[in-house]
Amino acid sequence: MDITEYMHTLGRQARAASRAMARADSATRNRALHLIADAIERDSSILRAANEQDLDAARASGLGPALVDRLTLSESAIATMVDGLRQIAALPDPIGEISDLKFRPSGIQVGKMRVPLGVIGIIYEARPNVTVDAAGLCIKSGNATILRGGSEAINCNRALAALVAEGLVGAGLPEHGVQVVETTDRAAVGALITMPQYVDVIVPRGGKGLIERLMQEATVPMIKHLDGICHVYIDDKADVEKALRIALNAKTHRYGTCNTMETLLVARDLAPLVLPQLAEMYAAKQVELRADPESHHILQGYPYLVEAVPEDWSTEYLAPILSVKVVGGLDEAIDHINTYSSRHTDAIVTEDYSAALRFLREVDSASVMVNASTRFADGFEYGLGAEIGISNDKLHARGPVGLEGLTSLKYVVFGHGEIRK
Amino acid sequence: MDITEYMHTLGRQARAASRAMARADSATRNRALHLIADAIERDSSILRAANEQDLDAARASGLGPALVDRLTLSESAIATMVDGLRQIAALPDPIGEISDLKFRPSGIQVGKMRVPLGVIGIIYEARPNVTVDAAGLCIKSGNATILRGGSEAINCNRALAALVAEGLVGAGLPEHGVQVVETTDRAAVGALITMPQYVDVIVPRGGKGLIERLMQEATVPMIKHLDGICHVYIDDKADVEKALRIALNAKTHRYGTCNTMETLLVARDLAPLVLPQLAEMYAAKQVELRADPESHHILQGYPYLVEAVPEDWSTEYLAPILSVKVVGGLDEAIDHINTYSSRHTDAIVTEDYSAALRFLREVDSASVMVNASTRFADGFEYGLGAEIGISNDKLHARGPVGLEGLTSLKYVVFGHGEIRK
Repeated sequence: MDITEYMHTLGRQARAASRAMARADSATRNRALHLIADAIERDSSILRAANEQDLDAARASGLGPALVDRLTLSESAIATMVDGLRQIAALPDPIGEISDLKFRPSGIQVGKMRVPLGVIGIIYEARPNVTVDAAGLCIKSGNATILRGGSEAINCNRALAALVAEGLVGAGLPEHGVQVVETTDRAAVGALITMPQYVDVIVPRGGKGLIERLMQEATVPMIKHLDGICHVYIDDKADVEKALRIALNAKTHRYGTCNTMETLLVARDLAPLVLPQLAEMYAAKQVELRADPESHHILQGYPYLVEAVPEDWSTEYLAPILSVKVVGGLDEAIDHINTYSSRHTDAIVTEDYSAALRFLREVDSASVMVNASTRFADGFEYGLGAEIGISNDKLHARGPVGLEGLTSLKYVVFGHGEIRK
Repeated sequence: MDITEYMHTLGRQARAASRAMARADSATRNRALHLIADAIERDSSILRAANEQDLDAARASGLGPALVDRLTLSESAIATMVDGLRQIAALPDPIGEISDLKFRPSGIQVGKMRVPLGVIGIIYEARPNVTVDAAGLCIKSGNATILRGGSEAINCNRALAALVAEGLVGAGLPEHGVQVVETTDRAAVGALITMPQYVDVIVPRGGKGLIERLMQEATVPMIKHLDGICHVYIDDKADVEKALRIALNAKTHRYGTCNTMETLLVARDLAPLVLPQLAEMYAAKQVELRADPESHHILQGYPYLVEAVPEDWSTEYLAPILSVKVVGGLDEAIDHINTYSSRHTDAIVTEDYSAALRFLREVDSASVMVNASTRFADGFEYGLGAEIGISNDKLHARGPVGLEGLTSLKYVVFGHGEIRK
């Protein structure tokens, strides 16, 4: 099989299907979501059998236990998928909303209408539940989609693809509204990210390695994020109790997430008071502290203390490790963050009104917080109802991306026969 | 001079200046705009002398009269520039606006704040007034900018750059907030569009040739448009008087603009009535009609009648030429448009409610209109107050782009010590 030719066929079919997907009313798209959920429930044993095949192959090829775990489609994972689809169906329809409709002096009325982007390409790794989550979000937002999951999950993904197609057709939508790439050849990814004539945006869901590879080659725009180097700055006017609580939560609630704090900045005036108390809390969790000279001095005797090196300020640990730095005050904190942050999420802890406003305004990151844990940077916590991913880019979607990230605004003009003078 | 090194220096300086530009309050940015306007007024004779040098060089090198015309900075062009700056100063500040601030069940309050993009690169051709217009829009939106004008205008642009810097510094803003590339070496463009670490977005203002060249190489995102292949569809339920008026205006109001109609679609039922009347109006303006067989038959005897060839449906004439096609009805019209349109601006003329709604929803273009001339697709007509350009892309800015296109929305979180459970 010529992979490029195959992918172009999927692309042409997706482009054709995208028109019917965009045209479909809310009830039809929601009906498809419910039919898919029902079909998955009905065929859960077939799905688990397909998953067993994948798991056998994975174990035979020596895949590590972590990957095998992510590949496993348990009974409860199937229930979560089904639940997720029904929740997406219950969300308000983002499509067709018209906003800002205003009369102009010429007599025309101008507004903006929210519309689907067209064709979304999703590239992800082992987890088969992404197939259904991503399909659900694209159907809800009126887009056609091409899903390229990890080759380890191919049997399960094929089985899921059949059920998705069944639901689409049952609701009167085109079967090519959602297509799963049915080859494990890696050239398929290369083709998918370089066919802008058929694909409007790529959402890569996976590790930094995957995304860096895609960025080298992609000619289709991507909604992506690479790093989460998030900061908490404890201002000299911080409420100490809030500061301790937030600094502990932002680091230790979960270590492997992109909105976890990786660097703690503490104002010089408060450092001798706050750092020893924090150290006690971190010690209980064996968090390694990589300290600049000033905080190192204050933290002497801490059991997991290391001297920070320059690379620490730009490292995402995703582990029980935290870099710590004493700063002179707000200006130095903002400078440090705007230099080293990955522009994902940064927080200040302060009771000072002006400091809070300046931090919000001047820190150039997708999420900027006052007196809250960076762990809140999340589509569900923000009330988006769903999360496609998190974007570090400034154009189009920024920060946690919900269904709106899969849509675009076009201008609509209601006229009454007006012509330009 | 090493051009890449020089451009990287400009980039570093722009990135550094962008922080102070973003931080500056509305009054400071507006003061800079007024100081620049005043300086241009004061030094208009110096500017005209610099322009004379450019014009001499242009004439000596045999530049055509159209280009010499665009290069000329007349007294009235200077007055228009000055006026433009004062109008930009009078616009509402797009920066800092917080919207959708809502409490979440966790207790945090989440909203979106409009912020500058950072550094904007603008690439344009001969016209020196773009230097001042673009600088003004970027200052207003709190961005730093690097301007790369046509080499023919280099003396004038240098003189303008000095006045812009004077205004910035006079208002307390960094002199590198606006930088003009002071070399005519074309390698400067190549460097500017491939330094995403310093430049957040490129706005190319120029012909299709320029933009196609840039698209090949750019790694910085662009706000751009290539083509304006705009359609008017006269539905079988059209008010004939409105249809005639709009079809005439959309084609003949101006021939060289991107929102000019290039293809007219007419419903079969109305074609025998409408086309002969339209032909009479077009004949007075010597508009060549490139007709499909069915409309060709109806238009027989029209003095400027040509048989359409397939390429006509995807050609932007920018001239008194119009392709004409008879279609069966709404579905065929939408299909034709979604196949051949450049997704810029398309209009329907109809009195049918359902047809109007379907056209608005289903035509996948940046501007979609009912009963109005395509010529209205314009930032000023839409009430944006200013126009950076028009975007054919679906991501980020779409359609006429005002100051908002030079901004981004970041999430702001107001907390009270909340942590993630």
